[in-house]
Amino acid sequence: MKKYCFGVDVGGTTVKIGLFETVGNLIDKWEIKTRTENFGENILSDICDSMDAKLAEKGISLDEIEGVGIGLPGPVLADGTVLQCVNLGWGTFNVAEKMSEMFHGLKVKAGNDANVAALGEAWKGGGKDYDDIVMITLGTGVGGGVVLGGKIITGYNGGAGEIGHMHVNDEEELTCGCGRKGCLEQYTSATGVVRLAGRYMKATNQPSKMRDFGDAITAKDVFDLAKEGDEGANAVVAQMGDYLGKAMSSIAAVINPQAFIIGGGVSKAGQFLIDAIKGVYRETCFAACGDAAVHLAELGNDAGMYGSAALIVK
Amino acid sequence: MKKYCFGVDVGGTTVKIGLFETVGNLIDKWEIKTRTENFGENILSDICDSMDAKLAEKGISLDEIEGVGIGLPGPVLADGTVLQCVNLGWGTFNVAEKMSEMFHGLKVKAGNDANVAALGEAWKGGGKDYDDIVMITLGTGVGGGVVLGGKIITGYNGGAGEIGHMHVNDEEELTCGCGRKGCLEQYTSATGVVRLAGRYMKATNQPSKMRDFGDAITAKDVFDLAKEGDEGANAVVAQMGDYLGKAMSSIAAVINPQAFIIGGGVSKAGQFLIDAIKGVYRETCFAACGDAAVHLAELGNDAGMYGSAALIVK
Repeated sequence: MKKYCFGVDVGGTTVKIGLFETVGNLIDKWEIKTRTENFGENILSDICDSMDAKLAEKGISLDEIEGVGIGLPGPVLADGTVLQCVNLGWGTFNVAEKMSEMFHGLKVKAGNDANVAALGEAWKGGGKDYDDIVMITLGTGVGGGVVLGGKIITGYNGGAGEIGHMHVNDEEELTCGCGRKGCLEQYTSATGVVRLAGRYMKATNQPSKMRDFGDAITAKDVFDLAKEGDEGANAVVAQMGDYLGKAMSSIAAVINPQAFIIGGGVSKAGQFLIDAIKGVYRETCFAACGDAAVHLAELGNDAGMYGSAALIVK
Repeated sequence: MKKYCFGVDVGGTTVKIGLFETVGNLIDKWEIKTRTENFGENILSDICDSMDAKLAEKGISLDEIEGVGIGLPGPVLADGTVLQCVNLGWGTFNVAEKMSEMFHGLKVKAGNDANVAALGEAWKGGGKDYDDIVMITLGTGVGGGVVLGGKIITGYNGGAGEIGHMHVNDEEELTCGCGRKGCLEQYTSATGVVRLAGRYMKATNQPSKMRDFGDAITAKDVFDLAKEGDEGANAVVAQMGDYLGKAMSSIAAVINPQAFIIGGGVSKAGQFLIDAIKGVYRETCFAACGDAAVHLAELGNDAGMYGSAALIVK
């Protein structure tokens, strides 16, 4: 294996680029703007120009580069074909082939951003001690990724790791962003936690400091109050942990991972959140799967960059 | 690849053995008794003797044998270590290594019986047109297997494919065989369907021919009556399909398989059962996963034998 590789994480507003040693060290990282105009026709060439400039700056020759990994905000098939990236203005084409043509014929591999972030955590983050992990990202939505034997499971249509759209509630009347009702995301995303808090306050007259926040309450507020001992906030966290822990036990019955890695904005609640999930998981999961570790993610916004590099290295 | 291999399916009372051409044809199959006495010390040597005798009978030399695959009724790790086979009297040891020593140093691979049956269906049965399948076996219990890219996913502790122990009901008061409450198996196994029928009859006064059977009613009776148009029996089948279809949609959100293969005794209800499941699946699954095929298993009791052979061939 050659000495260096690039890990690229393409978002709707910025592209994060990392220059890595293939043994696993991040040498340098920087960002460029994502130019989405004209169906995003400049995005790949901007990235290639930026990588070329970095190589010149560092005095590194192309012969020392193993390849480029790239994470994209949309479904990506195993061969590097992106099906659609609405946020980038892209339709369907083979990104890996196209970018390789544009970047001196070097090896390029592409993956979905959530899947790639999971691979990053499995390589150098919260899952670095494990072979088989499931990452669950609790942000505005709930995403995830499945990494078995160090490889991303993409699924037939690139739909693997869509943990947020597991069906967990038959009684839900609100529609999820995906068009279904009762998805895990509706209760465990940042907005999901706020939804549960609102429902709790409506359903009971118990005093709770959550009421002081009114409609402006955030998931962070709920977790902060719960840590301070607010009974209502703790009831909301318990409910959220109940949905997530049970969904994790169903995941375990299907693929029995060695560890679950919990990331995204909501995971800033830290070990308090992990404890709320882990108890429910241990109580509901198939016994043989009970010793799976449950850890916080460690790479934050760099996970995608690391994981894209891992597409090349692993 | 050499011309022949063996596929062995070890059960608690009989061992099924198949001689296969490695291109996929079953040449001969037969059964021997499983001698479980003295901690099952004779089981492997009985199998080896039986395979030797078959080679002599057919005039096939050892040089023409690629290897032996063996399916076992207990958790099996990827390296061929069986953790425990209560039904055989076995503790923990590496079956693949042990059997290879006993059978002329040939390659031996071992797998869990349910996982191996899934691989058999993926190779030559209901899943033969697909790369990534999930098999769900609806029998006395509910088992399963996950095959991705033609390989069994065993999971960290051999617990992958334990579909029957996905948590699907928070309200259940009865304990499942696994020690938890609200497992899929409690509603979709043969006994699960009977349980749902019993609860239906208790909860309503509606006339139904199910009542004529009393406590002796079987899952087959329920499906037969449903096909005849009995309203109560159809309500029970719909409820069973609801549990299973929703669990499948959760599976799809995790690994997005290309096809689900439904086997086991309950699957003798045929396309009627598939229709009951498929509608619910399509309505609840994440849209990208919606076109997964749902098929009946095709190999019946031979699936394990085929799958064991596939451990060697694939």
